Amino acid sequence: MLEVADALAEVLARARPRSPQLMPLEPGNVGGVLAEDVTADRDAPPFDKSLRDGYAVRSTDRFDAELCVVEEIPAGVVPRKAIGPGECARIYTGAPIPAGADAVVMQEDTTAAGDRVRINAAPRPGAWVFRRGAEMRTGEVVVAAGTILTPAAIGVLVGVGRARIETHRFLDVGVVATGDELVGASEAPGPGQIRNTNGPMLTALACQAGTHGCDNGIARDTRESLRAVIGPALDNNNVVLIAGGVSAGKFDLVPGVLAELGVTAHFHQVRMKPGKPLLFGTRGDTLVFGLPGNPVSALVCFELFVRPALRKMAGHADPGPRVVNLPLAAAVVESNDRPTYRPAKLEPAAVGWAVRPLDGGTAPDLRGMAPADALLALPAGDARYDAGTPVRVVLIGKQD
Amino acid sequence: MLEVADALAEVLARARPRSPQLMPLEPGNVGGVLAEDVTADRDAPPFDKSLRDGYAVRSTDRFDAELCVVEEIPAGVVPRKAIGPGECARIYTGAPIPAGADAVVMQEDTTAAGDRVRINAAPRPGAWVFRRGAEMRTGEVVVAAGTILTPAAIGVLVGVGRARIETHRFLDVGVVATGDELVGASEAPGPGQIRNTNGPMLTALACQAGTHGCDNGIARDTRESLRAVIGPALDNNNVVLIAGGVSAGKFDLVPGVLAELGVTAHFHQVRMKPGKPLLFGTRGDTLVFGLPGNPVSALVCFELFVRPALRKMAGHADPGPRVVNLPLAAAVVESNDRPTYRPAKLEPAAVGWAVRPLDGGTAPDLRGMAPADALLALPAGDARYDAGTPVRVVLIGKQD
Repeated sequence: MLEVADALAEVLARARPRSPQLMPLEPGNVGGVLAEDVTADRDAPPFDKSLRDGYAVRSTDRFDAELCVVEEIPAGVVPRKAIGPGECARIYTGAPIPAGADAVVMQEDTTAAGDRVRINAAPRPGAWVFRRGAEMRTGEVVVAAGTILTPAAIGVLVGVGRARIETHRFLDVGVVATGDELVGASEAPGPGQIRNTNGPMLTALACQAGTHGCDNGIARDTRESLRAVIGPALDNNNVVLIAGGVSAGKFDLVPGVLAELGVTAHFHQVRMKPGKPLLFGTRGDTLVFGLPGNPVSALVCFELFVRPALRKMAGHADPGPRVVNLPLAAAVVESNDRPTYRPAKLEPAAVGWAVRPLDGGTAPDLRGMAPADALLALPAGDARYDAGTPVRVVLIGKQD
Repeated sequence: MLEVADALAEVLARARPRSPQLMPLEPGNVGGVLAEDVTADRDAPPFDKSLRDGYAVRSTDRFDAELCVVEEIPAGVVPRKAIGPGECARIYTGAPIPAGADAVVMQEDTTAAGDRVRINAAPRPGAWVFRRGAEMRTGEVVVAAGTILTPAAIGVLVGVGRARIETHRFLDVGVVATGDELVGASEAPGPGQIRNTNGPMLTALACQAGTHGCDNGIARDTRESLRAVIGPALDNNNVVLIAGGVSAGKFDLVPGVLAELGVTAHFHQVRMKPGKPLLFGTRGDTLVFGLPGNPVSALVCFELFVRPALRKMAGHADPGPRVVNLPLAAAVVESNDRPTYRPAKLEPAAVGWAVRPLDGGTAPDLRGMAPADALLALPAGDARYDAGTPVRVVLIGKQD
């Protein structure tokens, strides 16, 4: 059976970044990825600028006598006079340094006397001057392709005049739940029936990952129904998530229907717990995940395989999953024949975080998963991990 | 001057959770907070259920002879017969346990012979039976008020039949940038002009925090212009963010205009760097933040004060900011007269994370802030912190 790392490599090899498109720069871009190098359209600051209220002077001047104040320069005003020996200009924070001057003396270090001023502390060359281009130079790349669009990055882009940017196209993700036993949230389940939790949960996960997730509803356990729901989902999405119908039972028709619909299966079954029945296929550039019907298993497969695929397709250089070693906040006893993923939550420790298992060692239900922000990734075999032992942790949920 | 902790306490004391409203349960609720206790509408599982394919038996029976198979029970089918001594039922995963039986023997541990079966391993009472109500009992709270709506929590809510939930009303956040020197992203700045980065950046921050953030444009440095833009923003929003015009200079008219518009100022200036000019006021239930005009300062104030206020108003029990101690990935030299916040980035270490300063010790510009996911929180004074030293870190950006 395929190992998790090999299955992830297979998925990522087939998840290709979408083509760039020019889009308005909006709050909705936060978490997306810039698809072009953006350069400065002018120097910043555009001129040598005063960092203080005070006097613009020549640092090579003699300061044993008073200087003559030849001009007053508020912010936003262009100086008209050059400063000669024995001269200076009254200047304010943000105003351009006049020609001839090369330093600013803070108001606190001066004594004004009419149109003359005494400098009480000789300035270094360049004192309180913010040099033209010190922040950015015309043509310099200020936000590189591949940068994740934080609010601050959006501020930088606006600052260099970008109202539109090239980013990777949004992904359309279609979600299909399968099963004769499923009813919608508003319906009362009859004997043997359960509500469809996978559809809304996987759609929420897809949207949380920054895609256009769309719940395509329920397909029944017949070839006809599966074809009728999965077929259009394949036509209309970049990624299709199908929950249920991928185990080895006699009602598990999804693999056969996918083959009929032209999907090439690249693997089926991964050595992991939960999530073993996972199927992965492609049709053209469309990725198809056949996820287990158990919602906990579906969620674990989403975090380990689907989210990284969505991130790579959205242009992220590091698709994840994000893995870190953290000390356990409580002991864990594990006995299994496959690598196992268990819900957990980070909690602050004296330095950094510890990770607390949430399931108490029982098979987790979705309630146990609800507060989780991490999965313990435990190797196959029987072992006891004492509190304080560092263990491998996969971070789940939104990451940027 | 007010300390950061006291300023935050003042803000949080006046940030009240918004009233709950019934809303469709949708992917857009992810990151929101549930405002009601949600209970199970039925037991789950709704009946004692088999966890394996095999035979439903009486664990008190004698297993030295073959049992008579009286019925076959697939999943979704209601058993018609009670199991008596010497009897059993063929059963499948997910099917209801018939009356009389109290354990399941896995198929692998049996030898079938026509309508009889030999049990090769005597079962414990309850073996491979998932008890009615073991996952949840009718009336039990399955998702409590105050729970953050993860995709898994949405799955649980759908599972108990909720298509709508009570959550705290979305917040409307209005953003106003002030300054005669500001032009929009599409305009070419003239001499002394700069582009308005605070408006788009603060709007992106507000949206990232899960609110309806709206950029209300630019107000000029006159009482009339400030009143004309800030007045309607106060009327139409739960929180108003104003950038610039709050320092002590002669063009800093915002405090006076806010007073004229009926805003009560609760504090002005905080002992921190950057961010010292911060003003906080209220008018009725509306919160008003007068943020410094420097975008880095505005962002730091947003993360330390505005995001926690928005989280508390959205119903979060822990408004943040999220603070943790992390070892430095590189040495830091700091010299200041106020507690100082510097951009930084977490990077995985052998165990947990280290934190790497991004600004190299210079006053950070917005480019230095763009990749940051944390702020180093350094106390006032002169100090050198060696690599490996744990320092206080504030996590910034989206948190749930």
